Amino acid sequence: MIYFHSDYSQGAHPKVLDAIVKTNDEFTDGYGKDEYCERAKALIKELIKSEDSDVHFMIGGTPCNITVIAASLRPYESVIAARSGHIYVHETGAIEATGHRIVTVDGINGKLTPDLIDKAWEEYSDEHTVKPRMVYISEPTEIGTLYSRAEMTAISEKCKELGLLLYVDGARLGAALTSKESDLSIAELSRLCDAFYIGGTKNGALLGEALVINNKAMNENFRFMIKRQGGLLAKGRLIGVQFEALFKGGENGLYYEIASHENAMAEKLRNGLKNLGVKFYGDSPTNQIFPILPAKAVRELQKDFFFYEWAKEENGMIPVRLVTSWGSKESEVDAFLKRVKELI
Amino acid sequence: MIYFHSDYSQGAHPKVLDAIVKTNDEFTDGYGKDEYCERAKALIKELIKSEDSDVHFMIGGTPCNITVIAASLRPYESVIAARSGHIYVHETGAIEATGHRIVTVDGINGKLTPDLIDKAWEEYSDEHTVKPRMVYISEPTEIGTLYSRAEMTAISEKCKELGLLLYVDGARLGAALTSKESDLSIAELSRLCDAFYIGGTKNGALLGEALVINNKAMNENFRFMIKRQGGLLAKGRLIGVQFEALFKGGENGLYYEIASHENAMAEKLRNGLKNLGVKFYGDSPTNQIFPILPAKAVRELQKDFFFYEWAKEENGMIPVRLVTSWGSKESEVDAFLKRVKELI
Amino acid sequence: MIYFHSDYSQGAHPKVLDAIVKTNDEFTDGYGKDEYCERAKALIKELIKSEDSDVHFMIGGTPCNITVIAASLRPYESVIAARSGHIYVHETGAIEATGHRIVTVDGINGKLTPDLIDKAWEEYSDEHTVKPRMVYISEPTEIGTLYSRAEMTAISEKCKELGLLLYVDGARLGAALTSKESDLSIAELSRLCDAFYIGGTKNGALLGEALVINNKAMNENFRFMIKRQGGLLAKGRLIGVQFEALFKGGENGLYYEIASHENAMAEKLRNGLKNLGVKFYGDSPTNQIFPILPAKAVRELQKDFFFYEWAKEENGMIPVRLVTSWGSKESEVDAFLKRVKELI
Amino acid sequence: MIYFHSDYSQGAHPKVLDAIVKTNDEFTDGYGKDEYCERAKALIKELIKSEDSDVHFMIGGTPCNITVIAASLRPYESVIAARSGHIYVHETGAIEATGHRIVTVDGINGKLTPDLIDKAWEEYSDEHTVKPRMVYISEPTEIGTLYSRAEMTAISEKCKELGLLLYVDGARLGAALTSKESDLSIAELSRLCDAFYIGGTKNGALLGEALVINNKAMNENFRFMIKRQGGLLAKGRLIGVQFEALFKGGENGLYYEIASHENAMAEKLRNGLKNLGVKFYGDSPTNQIFPILPAKAVRELQKDFFFYEWAKEENGMIPVRLVTSWGSKESEVDAFLKRVKELI
Repeated sequence: MIYFHSDYSQGAHPKVLDAIVKTNDEFTDGYGKDEYCERAKALIKELIKSEDSDVHFMIGGTPCNITVIAASLRPYESVIAARSGHIYVHETGAIEATGHRIVTVDGINGKLTPDLIDKAWEEYSDEHTVKPRMVYISEPTEIGTLYSRAEMTAISEKCKELGLLLYVDGARLGAALTSKESDLSIAELSRLCDAFYIGGTKNGALLGEALVINNKAMNENFRFMIKRQGGLLAKGRLIGVQFEALFKGGENGLYYEIASHENAMAEKLRNGLKNLGVKFYGDSPTNQIFPILPAKAVRELQKDFFFYEWAKEENGMIPVRLVTSWGSKESEVDAFLKRVKELI
Repeated sequence: MIYFHSDYSQGAHPKVLDAIVKTNDEFTDGYGKDEYCERAKALIKELIKSEDSDVHFMIGGTPCNITVIAASLRPYESVIAARSGHIYVHETGAIEATGHRIVTVDGINGKLTPDLIDKAWEEYSDEHTVKPRMVYISEPTEIGTLYSRAEMTAISEKCKELGLLLYVDGARLGAALTSKESDLSIAELSRLCDAFYIGGTKNGALLGEALVINNKAMNENFRFMIKRQGGLLAKGRLIGVQFEALFKGGENGLYYEIASHENAMAEKLRNGLKNLGVKFYGDSPTNQIFPILPAKAVRELQKDFFFYEWAKEENGMIPVRLVTSWGSKESEVDAFLKRVKELI
Repeated sequence: MIYFHSDYSQGAHPKVLDAIVKTNDEFTDGYGKDEYCERAKALIKELIKSEDSDVHFMIGGTPCNITVIAASLRPYESVIAARSGHIYVHETGAIEATGHRIVTVDGINGKLTPDLIDKAWEEYSDEHTVKPRMVYISEPTEIGTLYSRAEMTAISEKCKELGLLLYVDGARLGAALTSKESDLSIAELSRLCDAFYIGGTKNGALLGEALVINNKAMNENFRFMIKRQGGLLAKGRLIGVQFEALFKGGENGLYYEIASHENAMAEKLRNGLKNLGVKFYGDSPTNQIFPILPAKAVRELQKDFFFYEWAKEENGMIPVRLVTSWGSKESEVDAFLKRVKELI
Repeated sequence: MIYFHSDYSQGAHPKVLDAIVKTNDEFTDGYGKDEYCERAKALIKELIKSEDSDVHFMIGGTPCNITVIAASLRPYESVIAARSGHIYVHETGAIEATGHRIVTVDGINGKLTPDLIDKAWEEYSDEHTVKPRMVYISEPTEIGTLYSRAEMTAISEKCKELGLLLYVDGARLGAALTSKESDLSIAELSRLCDAFYIGGTKNGALLGEALVINNKAMNENFRFMIKRQGGLLAKGRLIGVQFEALFKGGENGLYYEIASHENAMAEKLRNGLKNLGVKFYGDSPTNQIFPILPAKAVRELQKDFFFYEWAKEENGMIPVRLVTSWGSKESEVDAFLKRVKELI
């Protein structure tokens, strides 16, 4: 069975695993107060060129989202998101569990725009309504699309205009940063938002994300919030060790290398399928692609390949999701393309 | 520096780490729906002799506690605990964050008794008061003491009498099960309670706990609850792999071996200190001990040893906490005893 | 100044006030455990022909909604509503404050349909998503429209099919029940839903609503929920006294009389405006109407009449809301129509 | 039957009711944005000599407590209270429902002291514990005792020292202010705390309390909080009208008159019982008293008098609670004393 199911189907990238193994027997302080976490934080702050930012190592994406939102909003405040946003679609009401509404609008290619933010803002009027306080976007989006520098800047400015915080979910941030279509560096992204997280789980780590908080007020007593939301890891250095391994080379380091590999494999798949005349459901320049295949071909492919059906069959066609990972091999891509060619 | 600071200062036990490394490159389904988790669940169900129980692999102890309590209580219901209970003392209000009160009573040696449960129960009268619905205890307790089979049985019966669920926090359950003073097997413990968790983090795992739910009603849609509370790990097999390694030998397996080692090292420390005339703050038969040492000696010891001051200095004496771990060595214990001998 | 601003601009209907005054000096038990509440409950149960239902007197509509929803849903469950639903639009996130998502769809004339419920249901798939458990509708809707018996029956059946509870917000239920266009009696409505409330505040009471719960499971320990959500009134008989006065004549009693008057006054306004060629924003057969008037006329009218601008000016026209109340007089309606005639 | 059961067994004081009746037919804006509320606020601000304070009219005591606490604390912060405090004992977990812990200590005569606050403070250490942020006390306490000016000042200073907000629950504030043993004026009380509420329900109002917020930060967007917590009354002027009637004479007005009457009746009861040799459970100088009577006498008295058994029978004696109200008559007190004399 060949997996294009997700970028979290295997363990850690070998070099990340190696760092875990090498440091395993060392004694350190717990709960992320160790030198590995400190060094990894320093590397990230250097990369984003922001000494004043704070970095917290988190156990997953949903914990990042819950904790940032619950820490930043007063009880009656809400967060604006695309209806396709991960916090709305795939977190089982974890945001509402902290007492806050997600105000949704239908995104365009999975993205928000200043106009859409205005539209959400219009639902707010006075003390009878929730008060929007934050905008949540994902880079890349849940369907693999990207915000350009101009688009992100426009959103950032709209947020400032309306007094909204901007928070970016970077579960697959590496795939965005290394996409050929991206013109946004991590330092630029960081400058444009109040907080964002750098996803580790889907970029070669065993688990863990690096949450960057640029806004001092949001960071106040943030470790209390992490603990309160159940996200403080006893052996916290486990995440620090991994992020040190991922970021010690900066933009030439392992994090970028893994993401570039994921994108390259996805591009090969995309181009190969396009050459076979396959149409796509949305147009993603990152490591998730959404080809639309004949239902019959999908059934056959599923005998050898593990992937996700993205939407329901319509007129005999099914949009599927293919995701590449640190462990995806060129030969696996070739095998998939060969089989598709046979089937359509 | 020699560490008696905690049982989570190092990484994983080498055999656990080995299992992670060996399986690292395999592809599996995510979110704990993989064969490693399935096998580890089967091993645990065999050990507790309860095929009907459900097992969930959780990322930490606080997530276990939050999720079980929030899943089991109706909004106006409360959980009874000793004032020294971990959920009350060291979880930053994570239980209250789910909307529930912890009704506390002063425990005896860190333990609840049927009488103390009655005392807490008396605060309840009608719709103007919270309604107790669960009893939370820790085995071993937060100060290392143990419930005997008779004590646990009495609590279990009191809970049934009052219509209360019984939930046992087993963050250090291994140390209880392998203590010379314990007369309670894991299968017996399991039979006496509605749910409990088997701590991995403090017993040789990198991270992770196995939550066992014996009460079917509590388990309904439990995975929704895990996700909602932010505790569903994408690479969930990471915990399954570790628990398979820990439990594949049952009561002769690695989990028990690690715990026995921790207890043996603590016993050697305890006996050595007793022989030096040292008094103890409480009397723990597990891997945490609380000797009371002269403040001056404590200051000197801290130059070579890392440990926790448990309470404030009083009359020139300080109670400290020494915790042994899978990596604690006999030579380290000897070094500590030698140094104490020189200092007092 | 003449008020068409709302149906809560004056105090109580004189007969309701009279009941309060007459009983003022009597001593009763508190918190709604008095004979007035008991008698009012009996009257309502007779009216809905359901001896087994439970009735709770609540201090307001939002407390009804919060308490019913929080009492009925497990933590990961959600409630489906029209985007125009009061719980979504005008309760400042009070539902989310209890930890639950409102899943919204764009209603048709302010109403849900079985198809729209299906659409909302489709967002649910597995433990990564919230699980819909309740449908919330308002009768009449927030824009004054009505569900017919056939429409309400279809929704009720759809709910049963999907395992959803049906809850009806009856803030202005009187106006629905006495509308010429309604074919739904209160007993029929009650049979079709799990719970609903009969609005008092907007139908002649000083304050208070009667919450009817037909589903026994939803009612379990409901008084604990009322208290927990801050809605238990010490002098609870205040609401019982009023509802006894409102309902002692059943369908010939004061509640229906007040509502009929409100509807009659609104109908006179509606017909008068239609005769003047005025167009309407939606077509409401109850006591709220939404004529679209020239902005200039609106500014002039506001010198003598107090009413609400419903939406923004567009092409020189403004939709306004006119609401009639127990105290609205025919002469006031005439004065309004006369002034409009002069202005357009 | 003669009632000494509570101070909320009857409706409103006749003069309060009269104000409601006289203003009933007037049209006003809703939700507390009317001139009656404005005038009542002005009267209260004059009385407390603090033009900068904010006043909100609330529907009950629990809504005051919930809303102030939820508005003032960040998610991980807690409120310190006596174990006998109303928020802990009689609000069904309404505070925890907003996500916050109540840290309790055993009070002395129902009161906190600076030392007890220190004791509660000691449970706080770092991000693993909740962080106390507010002290909650009641004046008079739940057992009718009073804080002297010196005691209240000491608590206020302790709060400032530790960075804690001070909030005073004044459900029966009138009884404190008019007690012969009180040396604290409302203006002095107000100066010493960040917020407090002036209870109306138990001092002659039909319902309603006046919440005074002296701390500007706590007041930010407070009306959003009231609405979110379900406490915004549509016909809000109902409370404004009552508080205008209660406070228009300042310290010579109706509020003080009612409270003085309640205290005088309680004093007569207390002295009469003392003369009969009756002992008391605590020593309250306000309108609640707690005589300890023979169980047999209690059973006989209950045939003619309605009152509350405060604690369980012990050695044949039962502590009961007698509460006087605006409607308590001297003849009723005499009848009670006469009957006790016959029975003991």
